[in-house]
Amino acid sequence: MVSRRHFLQNSSLMLGAALVSKVEAASIPEAAVMDSSRTHTPIFPASGRPYQPVVTLNGWTLPWRMKNGWKEFHLVSEPVEREFAAGMVGHLWGYNGQTPGPTIEAVEGDKVRIFVTNKLPEHTAVHWHGMLLPCGMDGVGGLTQPQIKPGQTFVYEFELKKSGTFMYHPHADEMVQMAMGMMGLFIVHPKNPRFMAVDRDFAFLIAAYDIDPGTYTPRVNTMTEFNMWTFNSRVFPAIDPMVVALGDKVRIRVGNLTMTNHPIHLHGHTFEVTGTDGGWVPKTARWPEVTTDVAVGQMRAIEFHADAAGDWAFHCHKSHHTMNAMGHAVPTLIGANTRDLTAKIKQVAQGYMPMGETGMADMSDMNMPLPANTLPMMTGTGPFGSLEMGGMFTVLKVRAGQAAGNYQDPGWYQHPKGTVARLVEDEPAEPVHRHEK
Amino acid sequence: MVSRRHFLQNSSLMLGAALVSKVEAASIPEAAVMDSSRTHTPIFPASGRPYQPVVTLNGWTLPWRMKNGWKEFHLVSEPVEREFAAGMVGHLWGYNGQTPGPTIEAVEGDKVRIFVTNKLPEHTAVHWHGMLLPCGMDGVGGLTQPQIKPGQTFVYEFELKKSGTFMYHPHADEMVQMAMGMMGLFIVHPKNPRFMAVDRDFAFLIAAYDIDPGTYTPRVNTMTEFNMWTFNSRVFPAIDPMVVALGDKVRIRVGNLTMTNHPIHLHGHTFEVTGTDGGWVPKTARWPEVTTDVAVGQMRAIEFHADAAGDWAFHCHKSHHTMNAMGHAVPTLIGANTRDLTAKIKQVAQGYMPMGETGMADMSDMNMPLPANTLPMMTGTGPFGSLEMGGMFTVLKVRAGQAAGNYQDPGWYQHPKGTVARLVEDEPAEPVHRHEK
Amino acid sequence: MVSRRHFLQNSSLMLGAALVSKVEAASIPEAAVMDSSRTHTPIFPASGRPYQPVVTLNGWTLPWRMKNGWKEFHLVSEPVEREFAAGMVGHLWGYNGQTPGPTIEAVEGDKVRIFVTNKLPEHTAVHWHGMLLPCGMDGVGGLTQPQIKPGQTFVYEFELKKSGTFMYHPHADEMVQMAMGMMGLFIVHPKNPRFMAVDRDFAFLIAAYDIDPGTYTPRVNTMTEFNMWTFNSRVFPAIDPMVVALGDKVRIRVGNLTMTNHPIHLHGHTFEVTGTDGGWVPKTARWPEVTTDVAVGQMRAIEFHADAAGDWAFHCHKSHHTMNAMGHAVPTLIGANTRDLTAKIKQVAQGYMPMGETGMADMSDMNMPLPANTLPMMTGTGPFGSLEMGGMFTVLKVRAGQAAGNYQDPGWYQHPKGTVARLVEDEPAEPVHRHEK
Repeated sequence: MVSRRHFLQNSSLMLGAALVSKVEAASIPEAAVMDSSRTHTPIFPASGRPYQPVVTLNGWTLPWRMKNGWKEFHLVSEPVEREFAAGMVGHLWGYNGQTPGPTIEAVEGDKVRIFVTNKLPEHTAVHWHGMLLPCGMDGVGGLTQPQIKPGQTFVYEFELKKSGTFMYHPHADEMVQMAMGMMGLFIVHPKNPRFMAVDRDFAFLIAAYDIDPGTYTPRVNTMTEFNMWTFNSRVFPAIDPMVVALGDKVRIRVGNLTMTNHPIHLHGHTFEVTGTDGGWVPKTARWPEVTTDVAVGQMRAIEFHADAAGDWAFHCHKSHHTMNAMGHAVPTLIGANTRDLTAKIKQVAQGYMPMGETGMADMSDMNMPLPANTLPMMTGTGPFGSLEMGGMFTVLKVRAGQAAGNYQDPGWYQHPKGTVARLVEDEPAEPVHRHEK
Repeated sequence: MVSRRHFLQNSSLMLGAALVSKVEAASIPEAAVMDSSRTHTPIFPASGRPYQPVVTLNGWTLPWRMKNGWKEFHLVSEPVEREFAAGMVGHLWGYNGQTPGPTIEAVEGDKVRIFVTNKLPEHTAVHWHGMLLPCGMDGVGGLTQPQIKPGQTFVYEFELKKSGTFMYHPHADEMVQMAMGMMGLFIVHPKNPRFMAVDRDFAFLIAAYDIDPGTYTPRVNTMTEFNMWTFNSRVFPAIDPMVVALGDKVRIRVGNLTMTNHPIHLHGHTFEVTGTDGGWVPKTARWPEVTTDVAVGQMRAIEFHADAAGDWAFHCHKSHHTMNAMGHAVPTLIGANTRDLTAKIKQVAQGYMPMGETGMADMSDMNMPLPANTLPMMTGTGPFGSLEMGGMFTVLKVRAGQAAGNYQDPGWYQHPKGTVARLVEDEPAEPVHRHEK
Repeated sequence: MVSRRHFLQNSSLMLGAALVSKVEAASIPEAAVMDSSRTHTPIFPASGRPYQPVVTLNGWTLPWRMKNGWKEFHLVSEPVEREFAAGMVGHLWGYNGQTPGPTIEAVEGDKVRIFVTNKLPEHTAVHWHGMLLPCGMDGVGGLTQPQIKPGQTFVYEFELKKSGTFMYHPHADEMVQMAMGMMGLFIVHPKNPRFMAVDRDFAFLIAAYDIDPGTYTPRVNTMTEFNMWTFNSRVFPAIDPMVVALGDKVRIRVGNLTMTNHPIHLHGHTFEVTGTDGGWVPKTARWPEVTTDVAVGQMRAIEFHADAAGDWAFHCHKSHHTMNAMGHAVPTLIGANTRDLTAKIKQVAQGYMPMGETGMADMSDMNMPLPANTLPMMTGTGPFGSLEMGGMFTVLKVRAGQAAGNYQDPGWYQHPKGTVARLVEDEPAEPVHRHEK
């Protein structure tokens, strides 16, 4: 007890005076921290109720420890660097080293205790979106709790009353903190592992940023004209594919924390929305869909049978959202003859290159000089050439004749392995670093 | 009879020549007018079929009179002043003294006659959104009726064929008139009072305005960059809370007349959408939700059991919409060191104050000088300090151990009383003024 | 065989070397081309399985030929001129002479072979949105096939596994090509003609363009501030009405390929969404609606009984989308007194005309000089005067006492005839021209 108090007095990780009584005899668990944006091997639970873990696209799940019947987690809100794709890094805010923060996974009926340490330069609070919990645990700064000041740790405790797809994000300086990347998934698995069982279970959050070319920090006041549209703060071609076996029952869970709707579209398959952040959708109420509109602050679980082999596009159907950073007010040159003009401009600006007279498909072949920390607008190479995509686009890879440990990936784009770790003999997960305490 | 004709000849409230035959022997009922933006005590019907009235958030219900089996209402379209919150007034257009106009409440099967007098500087017409009615009563200026010119009164007559949540708004110079605030709720209660019965029934419309700081009149041509996002033309913290008793079955009816979707989010409870502007949703078709996306020109009735005591946030989940007026193109200073710069600027501009280097949470503590008629961006104080919110945000207050006449409100923000007047010993409703005739 | 090869060698319509093996013994069917934007008489099938054709609003259906059990179609992607309404033409890209391209209609179980010839100045590919098909036929350039270079023809072959409402559009330089108008409907009728049978079946796609006043070519990089909101690339009052008989069961199919949601609203009737691009919605899952939000990349089939005679508005409920091109940053003059100012301005600018002091309803009466190729913002005349509308607005005309061959249209706006050709003794369809081969 003394040693814990000693630690608290001498550390930047300090419990706020008003909050000490909440933690009582509990020592604070270590806070795992991640420095990579790769998709990590899902962790099967070593203790507590059994469940099949989700695959967080380009993300990871937060370890916990059991303590007197409580699952204890430790989130640290802090500035992070996130690689959107090779060649571009964002200076963002997140949790435990990355944005989105680690996925929290637990089971219906679990009692969870979540320590939140604030290492941001301003106060914060964490709202557990979709959860049924005591009002004091709801995480609305000012309304249900005092703000968590920089250096303080707040303890949330509640029982998980229902299974489903939830998320966490700040309810303090909310617009700014979400615009900076603060968000994470919270998956509650059913107590009965056969209920709503699937073969593959993927999850990610949609986030949008407005980062001027050549810069690193988002403009936090932007309302509509974002230029980085992401799945889990990654853009194509750096969003991992979702690899499944032919015949698999597949679930994909999507949450939206941007400022506009995202119609999520899957090729080659018909799906149903089976879950929301409010719970599971009854069978009588489900619609057949190929595009589901995920509104802001909504989560959708879609399910389908992967009954068609191949590489199937999976993306937001707003075509601007499958582009990387670009200007939205550039004039159109389609049909214009710029030859004479170009000659004249080249007399004064040697590198000048007119473009767009025949559309923009050439863009992905051009080696235009880009500002530092800026991605090409249209990119990604497939077996038949450039995909001319960016942003919120990835591929569902349905592979026939594949079983556990036998995934053969054509390997024509990044991260062929490790994306469906349940059945894969994966390379060992990267070591999980620890915050110094 | 003579006196009525006399009145018509000598009044600016003149029936259009083409319309006189419609009113025949009917005299025009008085038009009640409201000069306050408080939530008014719902009116239980003194005549006609029984029903449980709705609580219009920061609004009121239009009185009617029975005449030969018809319920007669009188709407007056006119310029109004609306207080968005203490410190900011909009010069808008509305009905009977306020925007939104008064809620019209009636019962399935009722025959209604609605006189609409135009006191605007331009013509108008009223469309009864969602209603099944004869085409000539549909209110589309030019298509189903002549425009109602300034000074004229038009008479709409129809029978209410179905119960549900409807609204009225102009179908004449439509973009401008709705951008100026012309809209109102039209609630049709079921003939059978036990059908879809609830304990509490709240209703409001979402409206957006673009009002430059320091000015009073909206920019009517704005398509996306609005800066006032409102529930019934009020912004937090001036939107009344919704107070209910623990265990109550609660309905909240929302309609959207802005230019974008609004994902309405409730904390601490799971709800179902039970009604639209098309009618009631069958039980087999309902989804469990915590966030429902209300599209433009849609109405949604959500229902839930208030089974968790406390103060629960209820808001649009687009984080820009829970802010008051702000610029959307302000550069981000997070991580920047402005100390040296500030010193230099202060040499030329004494009051200069850099902000945002550590996020924007400090904004709600700053006493920045604001232009006249401009609200702070983030505001509202709860039991634990500033909520740092604005715009489309209010609180569902679920109170245990409370019964009729015994509401105990903690009183930490405005309008603690009168919000659930059905069970409350309320202060007398403000006197309802009359238009001079 | 020789003659076909001869043709291929000497034509700009050349099969790409890599693609020749695909077509094998097939000769390429003629590509019908359309030079009109009128609604064409639906074609009842002369061969193959029977079905009731759809009415494409201001569009037409692509003829096919049967060849060894395959239905063969020929699409040509190419620059086109589209009349938005009398007085404004867009220089767009489309298929077979118009945008949207011709509607493809076939029957569940059909085997279809679709030749796509690229006459654009850049490569393209065609994705069959919503279809269940082999991955190689999915039309994602780079991912599932090589791009179709200018001058090449690609052959798509697949079996139609389910009935429903689908579409086709490029998946190559996607943002640009859709912003230029490349899209078309693909209707698959049920094998059992009694399944989901209706009396009237209309279909159209929503497209948005950003065309500066006085110009012809869209700005292809625009993300939000479009100014031409269209049904099948037509704007009110040039969108044909939908004429039906009182009592008809009516279906309207809508697809959205813009960059934002469109809440489609019908007056005077309650409808249900019965189909999506994923299939047919089970009865237990349907909602009663008057406004359905069609998200980007979604299709919705709505159905209702036309049980109320009259002229019923049918439109997008975003009021900016029922206006033609306008500025969105124009200051509001409501309430301002511009008389003195006007006098001064007129001294230097003779034609100056202040407007908007009393709203904008006068706009439709003004004869303001417009730039070339620019439509008035608010227009359309009905039986009671100006409708003050533009953009995504048309009228459902429900006519009593009308039977096959006896449509009596009041004729107060364009295209009174030919809109419901199934029952109409129509003027002969315009001759369908042929591409020179």
